[in-house]
Amino acid sequence: MSDFRGQGVAIDGKRLLSELQELRAFGARGSGVVRQSFSEVDLASRRWLQERMQAAGLHAAIDGIGNVIGSAQVGERALLMGSHTDTQPEGGWLDGAMGVMCALEVARATREQRGDRYAIDVASWMDEEGHFLTCLGSRSFCGKLTSADIDAAASPDGGRLREAIGAAGIGRTPCARLDRDRHVAYLEAHIEQGCVLENLSLSIGVVSSIVGGAAFRGVIVGQQNHAGTTPMNMRRDAGRAFVDLAQQIDRTFRRRADAGTVWTIGDVRFYPGAVNTIPGRCEFSLEFRDVDEGRIRGLVESLHEIVEAANGEGVVTVQLESLGDVIPPAHMDLRIQRLIAEAAERHAPGAWKSMPSGAGHDAAVFADVVPSGMLFVPSLGGISHAFNEDTRHEHIVLGCQVLADSAIAVLDAMA
Amino acid sequence: MSDFRGQGVAIDGKRLLSELQELRAFGARGSGVVRQSFSEVDLASRRWLQERMQAAGLHAAIDGIGNVIGSAQVGERALLMGSHTDTQPEGGWLDGAMGVMCALEVARATREQRGDRYAIDVASWMDEEGHFLTCLGSRSFCGKLTSADIDAAASPDGGRLREAIGAAGIGRTPCARLDRDRHVAYLEAHIEQGCVLENLSLSIGVVSSIVGGAAFRGVIVGQQNHAGTTPMNMRRDAGRAFVDLAQQIDRTFRRRADAGTVWTIGDVRFYPGAVNTIPGRCEFSLEFRDVDEGRIRGLVESLHEIVEAANGEGVVTVQLESLGDVIPPAHMDLRIQRLIAEAAERHAPGAWKSMPSGAGHDAAVFADVVPSGMLFVPSLGGISHAFNEDTRHEHIVLGCQVLADSAIAVLDAMA
Repeated sequence: MSDFRGQGVAIDGKRLLSELQELRAFGARGSGVVRQSFSEVDLASRRWLQERMQAAGLHAAIDGIGNVIGSAQVGERALLMGSHTDTQPEGGWLDGAMGVMCALEVARATREQRGDRYAIDVASWMDEEGHFLTCLGSRSFCGKLTSADIDAAASPDGGRLREAIGAAGIGRTPCARLDRDRHVAYLEAHIEQGCVLENLSLSIGVVSSIVGGAAFRGVIVGQQNHAGTTPMNMRRDAGRAFVDLAQQIDRTFRRRADAGTVWTIGDVRFYPGAVNTIPGRCEFSLEFRDVDEGRIRGLVESLHEIVEAANGEGVVTVQLESLGDVIPPAHMDLRIQRLIAEAAERHAPGAWKSMPSGAGHDAAVFADVVPSGMLFVPSLGGISHAFNEDTRHEHIVLGCQVLADSAIAVLDAMA
Repeated sequence: MSDFRGQGVAIDGKRLLSELQELRAFGARGSGVVRQSFSEVDLASRRWLQERMQAAGLHAAIDGIGNVIGSAQVGERALLMGSHTDTQPEGGWLDGAMGVMCALEVARATREQRGDRYAIDVASWMDEEGHFLTCLGSRSFCGKLTSADIDAAASPDGGRLREAIGAAGIGRTPCARLDRDRHVAYLEAHIEQGCVLENLSLSIGVVSSIVGGAAFRGVIVGQQNHAGTTPMNMRRDAGRAFVDLAQQIDRTFRRRADAGTVWTIGDVRFYPGAVNTIPGRCEFSLEFRDVDEGRIRGLVESLHEIVEAANGEGVVTVQLESLGDVIPPAHMDLRIQRLIAEAAERHAPGAWKSMPSGAGHDAAVFADVVPSGMLFVPSLGGISHAFNEDTRHEHIVLGCQVLADSAIAVLDAMA
């Protein structure tokens, strides 16, 4: 450990947890939080966060898309750290919030203990959860957002993003941008939102890649008919065709999958959906994710082949509609992965692992723009996007300490 | 054909079609009919039918459950013929109605051409479609209905059968009963409601049996989870379990089925039903039908074994709920089948077949009480329980003529 020059910045776990509880009060709903982007409570929490950043000695502002960004008033080269404070419609208290408050604690502790030697900028990116547009704030900050994207964006209840920006009073505020001369790297801490760490009794995940993937909607059209009077060999049963297709997809994907590939049929409907009627129509969803873009595109190809073969049988027709473009996976910087792993091994020897992220994160937006890294702490029961999302407090504090060590190491190595 | 003593009763096809169109006007909705049992339009049609019966020389009355029964005022031994005039919520103009009006035409033509020699009673059985209780009228007539059944019966919109009977003004009218000394047999004509006759270019179906069957609702409980962060080997996916189970049911049933066995998964729902969430719960329906009661009970047994095996794997739990008792199949009288077949061969040589009925009918209620027979005419496109249900007029007339020949032959043989 003698090569670890930054050793010694100790985060204040009590202060971190206390601030996390303060933030939790904005939109608290039982043990959960309802704080969707651009809601009143979200905007109030941003003003509170801005004050907390200023109290920590950062120059803090809310930019033209709603990002709260606190910049260290020192150094020419800085580490950028953050996550998001908006939540799902029924969210937990840690999804995003933990990463933002950990970043602030690391910046504050570093300044307290190391003065002006290290520069750490902290951010809460607007609307990671996509109430209007997924990863809105980080995309804006990375220059990946057009004015047309903003014009087109609307929430599920029909609200326009432009109007939300206007109502928030930031319509004329400039949007902050990544400064390639200043920002040497991006670091994010997050809850895992899965059960891998918990199942393996580990405390820290060092994210290797953030998966990409593809999503589809399938429509099978057969012939609705009487379940009693239509012999099996005269049926064009859209439901049976779905079962065959789902089985075929599963067999094929299993063959072509890596250990980390996931695929899910999350929804299916038979029409008309009566006990005594042969389904004439079936609609279903399919999504799959992987860390390898080639494999994702291979699975898309397999899927089209399976559908083509099903159509070739001439019993039903299957139509496949892509739900957006293939999302390419994002790879975390190898050097940063190593530095996080060293920090994890220091504070949780043998209790960490390198792992992909199956969920999307702001870090995926940064990964092809600036060297990026991410760490996970375990989610209790793997539960997230739900009011009962939680993490053991010692894991939150541990995660923040590993983040602090990683931050100093990254700055030492890269700034 | 020299043994066919009754040859020569010719039905009046134009009169039959004209009366069918009159009946169709009660509740007409485009090409379809909405005439649910005990609705105002249903009750009005019953009064109209009573008048038509009386005009045909029958003694006609509406009994205490709403059956319209026209009795020939001759003979000690009579043939009973009928079907139903109530419709599905969105029904066709022939489902039931054709059989009632054919029966009336046969009774009338027979009386006109043979005077008092043959006695034919005609009936429209109340609520075959089960708005309150499936085959209500025929069950009442056959003594298969208890007062408690009537007390318990309610429509999908919550209306009580008792109140409907009261509102119809028949609460104190006695219920007519099958007279075993008088009624030598029961005959019913009906549209096929399937596509077998049409697909084989046939004109008449001689019903051998009316299928019985069983229906179930299955509930699969797994673990709802994030579709990105939950590795395949840590999933308890209720949707995938459904696909496996459905495939297993299909394989097993296919092995144990007869050519006429049918099985249908008509409805399925995944919960919560989101693209990016592993289904934690799945609900589905399964029904199957067969003419062999032993085979039905064997399939029930197979189903329970499949579910038990699925539960044994310990990934998800599957619960199976029976939707009512096993309905035993009903077998048509062999002698009557032969007489209908002879009549069919006379009027449509080579264009008829013996076949089971995949749908339930009033004749199934009669079959174990009195020798019963049924004939089918083709349904265009196999469509029924829909506004666009239809049958070629020449098939309706042909069916009525075959019914007339069958009626005379049955009376000659059995009265």
